[in-house]
Amino acid sequence: MSVIISEGVGGSRRYGRTVSSLTGSISLRLAMSLDGYIADERGGYDWIVPVPSPGLDTTDPLPFEAFLDDVDVVVMGRHCYDQGQHRDYAGLGKRLIVATSSPPAPAPGEGFVEFVSQDVVGIVRAARDAGERCFLFGGGVLVETFLASDMVDALTVSIVPVLLGKGRPLFGGRHPQLDLALTAYAVQDSKVRLVYRRR
Amino acid sequence: MSVIISEGVGGSRRYGRTVSSLTGSISLRLAMSLDGYIADERGGYDWIVPVPSPGLDTTDPLPFEAFLDDVDVVVMGRHCYDQGQHRDYAGLGKRLIVATSSPPAPAPGEGFVEFVSQDVVGIVRAARDAGERCFLFGGGVLVETFLASDMVDALTVSIVPVLLGKGRPLFGGRHPQLDLALTAYAVQDSKVRLVYRRR
Repeated sequence: MSVIISEGVGGSRRYGRTVSSLTGSISLRLAMSLDGYIADERGGYDWIVPVPSPGLDTTDPLPFEAFLDDVDVVVMGRHCYDQGQHRDYAGLGKRLIVATSSPPAPAPGEGFVEFVSQDVVGIVRAARDAGERCFLFGGGVLVETFLASDMVDALTVSIVPVLLGKGRPLFGGRHPQLDLALTAYAVQDSKVRLVYRRR
Repeated sequence: MSVIISEGVGGSRRYGRTVSSLTGSISLRLAMSLDGYIADERGGYDWIVPVPSPGLDTTDPLPFEAFLDDVDVVVMGRHCYDQGQHRDYAGLGKRLIVATSSPPAPAPGEGFVEFVSQDVVGIVRAARDAGERCFLFGGGVLVETFLASDMVDALTVSIVPVLLGKGRPLFGGRHPQLDLALTAYAVQDSKVRLVYRRR
């Protein structure tokens, strides 16, 4: 199944827009409730719990580690950086871009972090067109910016088995229609992971 | 797989609230875009198209006909009735309830239609508690009414491979959290059908 995920993320090989985008891609990987929320009203996640689904679970859960193996560039917003989420990517040999209107001084030992204050879409597009596989980590503003620019090539969405009824929506903004094709899926403990590429 | 769907719909056997709700249930079956819309802004559905997903399709697509075999009572709103959607259920031997504030005169040959102008939730609850398997056909107001009353026992959601970016949301209203467990799934032409029961 990790082979299939590679085909999904690298799907621009066959569906690329330019000759130079031979293997480059821009991908999302997110989790949401069945009714499309990424967090409850207070920002909490305690509704993400394993729920046995005996007889349905797939052999390969399409883990994050296998996804990350196929990533060259990680892009995150300033809030994620301030939460320290960039530290998980130290020493992995990946380019890490933080979108922020006011770049801070680099922290000690964090020379791998690249702050971008203008045209993050253009910079990530250039990386993709140079063949790099870019992962939009989040948060919501960054995701919406790329969806609004019609710049998402692939996405993985894990659907958590709950209707929250209210909360923080994943796809909150208006953006152009993005037609998709399913390239892989996994089931684990009632959570369904769906991998799509742009068609 | 149709056996699994029966377990899902009849899941109240193990999770029932009362001794009398031995096999009764209230179910939904709906389709939505990955970002949670049931129709585009103009009410259109031309975004629901088959998209090949070779190597991923399951043997059993969990078709509507098999679902309907396990239904005793169909419940729909007045707008669906006015569109003539009740006619598909003529002659199937099922009870058909139409929720409406102003019941019309029964049309010729439509004696199987039962108009309910008050407390449709109470009437359907009574049917469920008497052991009947009730299918909430739609539309959105009816679905929201039952979600708000925390009266949904099972739901089947088909996820169409598109981000519409705007449209008519399936789960638009605020309602109590509904914790679910996956009981079956199917993949066909990039559409993923997920069957859940209340846990």
